[in-house]
Amino acid sequence: MPEGVTAGEVIAGHLAALAVRFLRAVRDRQADEAAAAAALRASGGRIAAALHTWEPLLDPGWARELRPELGWLCEEVTREYRYAARLARLTGALHRLAAGRAAPAGPSAAGAARAGALLERRLTQGRSRARSAALQAYGSGRFHAVADAVALLASDTPLAGRATGPAGQLLPPLAAGACRALADAVAALPLGVAGSPYNTQALHGTLADPAAPAGGTGNGSTGSGGTGTHGSGDEGEGDGEDPRDTPWHRVRVLARGCRYALEVPGAGPPPPGMPQAAGLYGAGRALDRHRDAAEAAEAAAGAARTPRITPATAYALGVLHADQRTEAEAARYAFSTLWRPTAPATAPSGGPTT
Amino acid sequence: MPEGVTAGEVIAGHLAALAVRFLRAVRDRQADEAAAAAALRASGGRIAAALHTWEPLLDPGWARELRPELGWLCEEVTREYRYAARLARLTGALHRLAAGRAAPAGPSAAGAARAGALLERRLTQGRSRARSAALQAYGSGRFHAVADAVALLASDTPLAGRATGPAGQLLPPLAAGACRALADAVAALPLGVAGSPYNTQALHGTLADPAAPAGGTGNGSTGSGGTGTHGSGDEGEGDGEDPRDTPWHRVRVLARGCRYALEVPGAGPPPPGMPQAAGLYGAGRALDRHRDAAEAAEAAAGAARTPRITPATAYALGVLHADQRTEAEAARYAFSTLWRPTAPATAPSGGPTT
Repeated sequence: MPEGVTAGEVIAGHLAALAVRFLRAVRDRQADEAAAAAALRASGGRIAAALHTWEPLLDPGWARELRPELGWLCEEVTREYRYAARLARLTGALHRLAAGRAAPAGPSAAGAARAGALLERRLTQGRSRARSAALQAYGSGRFHAVADAVALLASDTPLAGRATGPAGQLLPPLAAGACRALADAVAALPLGVAGSPYNTQALHGTLADPAAPAGGTGNGSTGSGGTGTHGSGDEGEGDGEDPRDTPWHRVRVLARGCRYALEVPGAGPPPPGMPQAAGLYGAGRALDRHRDAAEAAEAAAGAARTPRITPATAYALGVLHADQRTEAEAARYAFSTLWRPTAPATAPSGGPTT
Repeated sequence: MPEGVTAGEVIAGHLAALAVRFLRAVRDRQADEAAAAAALRASGGRIAAALHTWEPLLDPGWARELRPELGWLCEEVTREYRYAARLARLTGALHRLAAGRAAPAGPSAAGAARAGALLERRLTQGRSRARSAALQAYGSGRFHAVADAVALLASDTPLAGRATGPAGQLLPPLAAGACRALADAVAALPLGVAGSPYNTQALHGTLADPAAPAGGTGNGSTGSGGTGTHGSGDEGEGDGEDPRDTPWHRVRVLARGCRYALEVPGAGPPPPGMPQAAGLYGAGRALDRHRDAAEAAEAAAGAARTPRITPATAYALGVLHADQRTEAEAARYAFSTLWRPTAPATAPSGGPTT
């Protein structure tokens, strides 16, 4: 970072680039809806994370107001695609579970086929509802207010007074703060257990009923990313996330926040005791799989509570539920092997790494 | 092995010691049935394995006749205990699966409780049948004929003419032969896949129906041990073993045969490319767990085919089936990590190891 560049200049430039991507996705939505939704989610998620990480450099009230609105928007525009992905995941798993030893129309194969049909019906319904909600969101005043606020970022980012300070001095501690939040959350994870293969933790309690009757616990306020909207709002499906998954979901959001922060020019290297960028990315991807598998397991469990299903269908859904919980356990294992610190946490910061 | 000791002397001594243990177990059966059954199984299994490994040193017709009879006996006297162990394994797994998040009488917990009750009923019935069969076996002429044949081993082992050759020359190649059979069988296992955690192989095809309608494929003739009686004769439960488990069951029996062979004085060290004794033992234990989990999974699948069970029960049995298949996968993983060759298979045999 050259001398004389202010922190505000860097952050404003960073946010402006993201805002341009966001606004382009809004503009091009009619041409390719799916691509636009992905771009909105990616840029919106990055903007929300940046508003959190660099909040001390921004007009505080303004940043705090925009963040949850971005979270809402990202969730609304991508939910239908997540239903589709969940159905594809579960259908693929059912095919894998029903593969081999071909017997025409045995009870297990029939159960698997019925379970697949039931899941398709339920998740397609969920997807349709999500699609209607997304279309409504796109036409709403709330959406246009978010777009207007993002347009402001592209032209005239509302900065705080202290943002006139030098970038090389102000940015690294804020990036390190985002990463420290991640490191603290990772330190609270049971990595010793997760790093031992086949520890059966993810299946533990699969047949226990939740203490709370319904409703997810994730409301998007658990992390810095602003798009950590796992589990909430998926009506009629599952009974809310397993509370033992929550710390992992939280780390997923924080890992993204840390990675995004380090992408800003002049933010500095990852703090000691933390993987490099590629490791952070891989570890985050493992936790994406963890969330997807956990949500798919919930969808299987929810489908099993459909009245009047046959025992063979219920049996197949039980196998599928366990399969997806095991996939979640596998993702935790992958995370624990990918989380390789660059140096012990006690080493002095600011080493020769770039 | 001192010069001048004949192979026949060593093998006769080895078999006599085993025969004494066997006959003591027969004598003491009334005092502690479970202990006697375990001792009969252990000594009978070792005798059967020895008859196979050292067959060229024994009266061939005689050894070949006794081996399957010992297999029958070991199976008969231990089957009831294996039902009890299977029930304990499944009950423990259900407790683990239903642990945590205590909600009184939710549908999943009710399903788990009903599944547990159903399994208890079925496996207790199986155990009772096995117990009747064992009592009948103990009183049968067939049992007494086996005991008489074993008594002959204790006093006057029927040797082949070539058994007068020197032990140091005749025993090592025969022991190596038993171990080579194991090495060949292990080489045919998919260890690359099994050694990669969470490979999902054991769940693959869980929801496929078997091509053959019923009946196990294992009839005790697959290996050298003579007690490899997995899967057969468990009436009304499961639909026979998964053919993809069969090579693993075969290795389990062969690993025991190799380990037993190496225990005979003068048999020499494990051939190159093979774990040492402790490794062989651990690897064999992993395959015991593999068999137990595979059989427990079959018991869960069999229970799920009970007419008129509730969907919640079927669901719990599906989760349990998947859980036990995952345990089987974990056991394969454990085997693949324990199977550490002492040297590459191309190294010359007869190194300095003792």
